[in-house]
Amino acid sequence: MFPWSAGDGSGAGHVSEAGEEGWDVEAYEVVDLGGACVIPGFVDSHTHLVFAGDRAAEFEARMRGQAYAAGGIRSTVAATRAASDDDLRARLRSFVAEATAQGTTTLEVKSGYGLTVTDEARLVRLAAEVTDEVTFLGAHVVPAEYAGATDAYVDLVVGPMLDACEPHAHWIDVFCETGAFTVEQSRRILEAGIARGLGARVHASQLGPGEGVRLAVEVGAASVDHGTFLADADVEALAASDTVLTLLPGVEFSTRQPYPDARRLIDAGVTLALASDCNPGSSFTSSLAFCIAVAVRDMRMTPAEAVWAATAGGARALRRNDVGRIAPGARADLVQLRAPSHVHLAYRPGVPLVEAVWKDGERVA
Amino acid sequence: MFPWSAGDGSGAGHVSEAGEEGWDVEAYEVVDLGGACVIPGFVDSHTHLVFAGDRAAEFEARMRGQAYAAGGIRSTVAATRAASDDDLRARLRSFVAEATAQGTTTLEVKSGYGLTVTDEARLVRLAAEVTDEVTFLGAHVVPAEYAGATDAYVDLVVGPMLDACEPHAHWIDVFCETGAFTVEQSRRILEAGIARGLGARVHASQLGPGEGVRLAVEVGAASVDHGTFLADADVEALAASDTVLTLLPGVEFSTRQPYPDARRLIDAGVTLALASDCNPGSSFTSSLAFCIAVAVRDMRMTPAEAVWAATAGGARALRRNDVGRIAPGARADLVQLRAPSHVHLAYRPGVPLVEAVWKDGERVA
Ligand SMILES: [Zn+2]
Ligand SMILES: [Zn+2]
Repeated sequence: MFPWSAGDGSGAGHVSEAGEEGWDVEAYEVVDLGGACVIPGFVDSHTHLVFAGDRAAEFEARMRGQAYAAGGIRSTVAATRAASDDDLRARLRSFVAEATAQGTTTLEVKSGYGLTVTDEARLVRLAAEVTDEVTFLGAHVVPAEYAGATDAYVDLVVGPMLDACEPHAHWIDVFCETGAFTVEQSRRILEAGIARGLGARVHASQLGPGEGVRLAVEVGAASVDHGTFLADADVEALAASDTVLTLLPGVEFSTRQPYPDARRLIDAGVTLALASDCNPGSSFTSSLAFCIAVAVRDMRMTPAEAVWAATAGGARALRRNDVGRIAPGARADLVQLRAPSHVHLAYRPGVPLVEAVWKDGERVA
Repeated sequence: MFPWSAGDGSGAGHVSEAGEEGWDVEAYEVVDLGGACVIPGFVDSHTHLVFAGDRAAEFEARMRGQAYAAGGIRSTVAATRAASDDDLRARLRSFVAEATAQGTTTLEVKSGYGLTVTDEARLVRLAAEVTDEVTFLGAHVVPAEYAGATDAYVDLVVGPMLDACEPHAHWIDVFCETGAFTVEQSRRILEAGIARGLGARVHASQLGPGEGVRLAVEVGAASVDHGTFLADADVEALAASDTVLTLLPGVEFSTRQPYPDARRLIDAGVTLALASDCNPGSSFTSSLAFCIAVAVRDMRMTPAEAVWAATAGGARALRRNDVGRIAPGARADLVQLRAPSHVHLAYRPGVPLVEAVWKDGERVA
């Protein structure tokens, strides 16, 4: 059963906690949607929305056949460091509005384009203005000024950078991948964050196989994200854990990588989320509907599984129980579709089907 | 050079015919878009928007691994025959509004879900209420009542059905494919239409290789559409002809077919259009932006080539010179993007980037 099949789908406003006695509809605002399909607001558990600059030229070059290079991140770092708070805030708010209009009601936002103590602190502070789900990702990439000195950069991340960022952040994240941070460096970073009360998340197995997925499970991360290249041992470890695997189909789409096989993962018992990874380098989509359509076509999810992963799955990836489902006690984060069912999100790819959006009972789009 | 790089991109209103002397801006309304990117309105040269019913369940089953069956068309035929004119008109207008909001300013609409003289005439008449680009596609599929008697059905199509439909139609089309109409039957249908003054279009090589593409070139069709399976001889014939090949990436996306290689086709000198094929069976998208994003990723077009194919290419597929480009003498069919360049249509897949739409100088979305 999917969460939204429990209700009649037509009740907006705050959802009551009446429990066994049923929904106490009288005490709440009732909105008649004429039988339209309603789903929970999307929970986008992985975005990088505090940045400046544009990498359309890099995208175009990659589409001409040039391989995805992590080095492209550095141009975003330079533009972000050079941007004023007001510039970054205006862009961030415009991306949040864009996501909201497309049905996203909960959004995680990572830092990671500052890579100095001052700039990372600035990014988590700005992110905290728009969401509670702020992730400190000082360990996104080794900045140019620490080239060949990754351990010294890790010292900075787990020392003064963590000190400066922890007050604004809820999560710590690391890019555990060949060319970024080793599994030992990643472990050190995650454990430092956990010791300061942050929850753990990990970027792993995007560019090739590695030990990042198993590290995420070992440290009890809420989510490990990407999973483009998974070994059987990764799948087994995930299936036996509370760690969600967050798939990011926008990345495979925009970098022409092979898609992970969600069917195999679901059948093995792995809990999946779908998120946008919205960022200017590897996946500049903010559309969870697009991610659902691609996940159905290319990752072999059913439409219901894909919608679940983009709502309840995202909530689990953020260890949230109050969003991603329509149920007594949950927040009234709701999306009305211009379509008779959730299947149309995959059946009608690219078509904007979001008719209305409520966040905590308030109409926001 | 692409058409929209000729102007400064900020002039809406009717485009003057001042020619060499430059644009006579004084005589026209000038709209300041603050430097936003403007592209020509999309020309969607292939849709099937007059129908009733829904095939979401068939889509879901196909995504579970069941092969695409042309038989599914029959359920749409039954629902369409049973629907009133008002029902069909309301649905058609709602699809046209949906397409307009996404930047489509010229739209071809085919019949083909009636398959009786009365119903096909009804569909072309309804289509003619919303567009001049009406295509009579009585030869979409052999209806159940003519099973095993395809030649008798062709007699009906080229006889009384053509008589009834020709007054409302501009084009004739046929589904030339194994299981539908043979190349001989297709030729008979196209020639009958041409003799009555209709232009020719052909559905071919969607489900497998065949002779439909070469037939289209032989009869001088404006466009042959699909081209999922092309032989070298097809490519050579197209390159030497005035027949446009219209690629329909929504079909390959929604049926998990392999994508044709647009790069090979462009390099061989074939003129390409991109269209939605919007229909409830094999491609229920109305988003040309989505088609562009998929064409760039999976057909290896550049973003500029894909935007050209969805605008100027669509115009050529309809033998139109007044749409699909921004130039003196062309209609002021314009789309303002919420993005700095046309590249973002591929760089930001699924994100609704259409900010405003003008059709013949009138703001329509
Ligand atoms: Zn990421
Ligand atoms: Zn078609």
